[in-house]
Amino acid sequence: MTVAVSKDDGLTREKILQSAIDAIDSHGEGALRIVDVARNAGVSQGMIRYYFGDRDTLVASAMAARFGQRYGFKLDEFAHLASRCNSSMEFRLAIEQTLSVVFVPERSRVRLERNSDIGNAKDHSEFAEQIADERNALCRNLAEVFESVQQRGLIKESVNCLHIAGLYLSFAHGISLWELGPEFLSRQELVTTFQEMLFAVLFE
Amino acid sequence: MTVAVSKDDGLTREKILQSAIDAIDSHGEGALRIVDVARNAGVSQGMIRYYFGDRDTLVASAMAARFGQRYGFKLDEFAHLASRCNSSMEFRLAIEQTLSVVFVPERSRVRLERNSDIGNAKDHSEFAEQIADERNALCRNLAEVFESVQQRGLIKESVNCLHIAGLYLSFAHGISLWELGPEFLSRQELVTTFQEMLFAVLFE
Repeated sequence: MTVAVSKDDGLTREKILQSAIDAIDSHGEGALRIVDVARNAGVSQGMIRYYFGDRDTLVASAMAARFGQRYGFKLDEFAHLASRCNSSMEFRLAIEQTLSVVFVPERSRVRLERNSDIGNAKDHSEFAEQIADERNALCRNLAEVFESVQQRGLIKESVNCLHIAGLYLSFAHGISLWELGPEFLSRQELVTTFQEMLFAVLFE
Repeated sequence: MTVAVSKDDGLTREKILQSAIDAIDSHGEGALRIVDVARNAGVSQGMIRYYFGDRDTLVASAMAARFGQRYGFKLDEFAHLASRCNSSMEFRLAIEQTLSVVFVPERSRVRLERNSDIGNAKDHSEFAEQIADERNALCRNLAEVFESVQQRGLIKESVNCLHIAGLYLSFAHGISLWELGPEFLSRQELVTTFQEMLFAVLFE
């Protein structure tokens, strides 16, 4: 079915989603009320039902959107840094700088919560597809950054940028394993080891 | 407090844990009953309470033990393969062979469930510590395999085996991100990319 969509429809949908994300961040998904989301987004409750149907769908869509926002942390800055690199050495530094801000202890909670999102998604196919869409979009965007520096000869021609992006996202999720319980391996040690492996395949 | 422990105490504890793991695997943690666990382990309910206290502690201990068992899949075989390697090339093949059996599609569910375990653990410090203990023991065991081949000169002397083991476990967890929803990047592509990065740091 095709629905006629007015020009600002995407914007309204985004406003509702962000209001729902804010509600979930503040009080948890269990406490989310359509009436509050509508008030904070400046839209009617009917509008929310028009875009998202029931409360469960709104919550799942907001959780998936949050998943993408969180995972995409610093991606724009990384793309910007990369666009200004003129040598392999500068791109190495751009990666180092980005990793050092992404893997700060303050973001440990966000990484651990990603486990809950994926754990929940595995039993809910609709939510799993939404999460997968966010993941794929991120992977493509990150791959584009690598492709752009590859076109300028800053990384090896043989590198498959999509696979490197996928592997980076795997590592970024997997490191949360080490953020549970008393520290055994530090984030810094793991990030440094990952960076060493990444550099070994990206650069001559 | 020190408790006098008879010689087979470890064995009894193991039997109870395995019986609890079997119960969880069959019907989920919610359906676990002490009386069934006791019957299947061939011990009294009092014995279970002696070792684990209440039902919640038994469930958490069994979930943590299962976490370790699952994550340690093929580790013994890998150690055995590695012990018989006489050249870097043979060790490369041992890694390839191991990765090809660990990352089969049939184990995707187990990897996705690890997300639920970690997600649950983040809000329960006792469970988090048990999971962390299992994780650390695995990491040490895997690091020992790398150390043993390093002592025989099959991988670079400069490699930090503990960090490599930690990174491998991060990747093994992180790949589950890609096992959600419709396939975008295949397991095989990611495993091959990881292997390439790993080989780049392990071998001259």
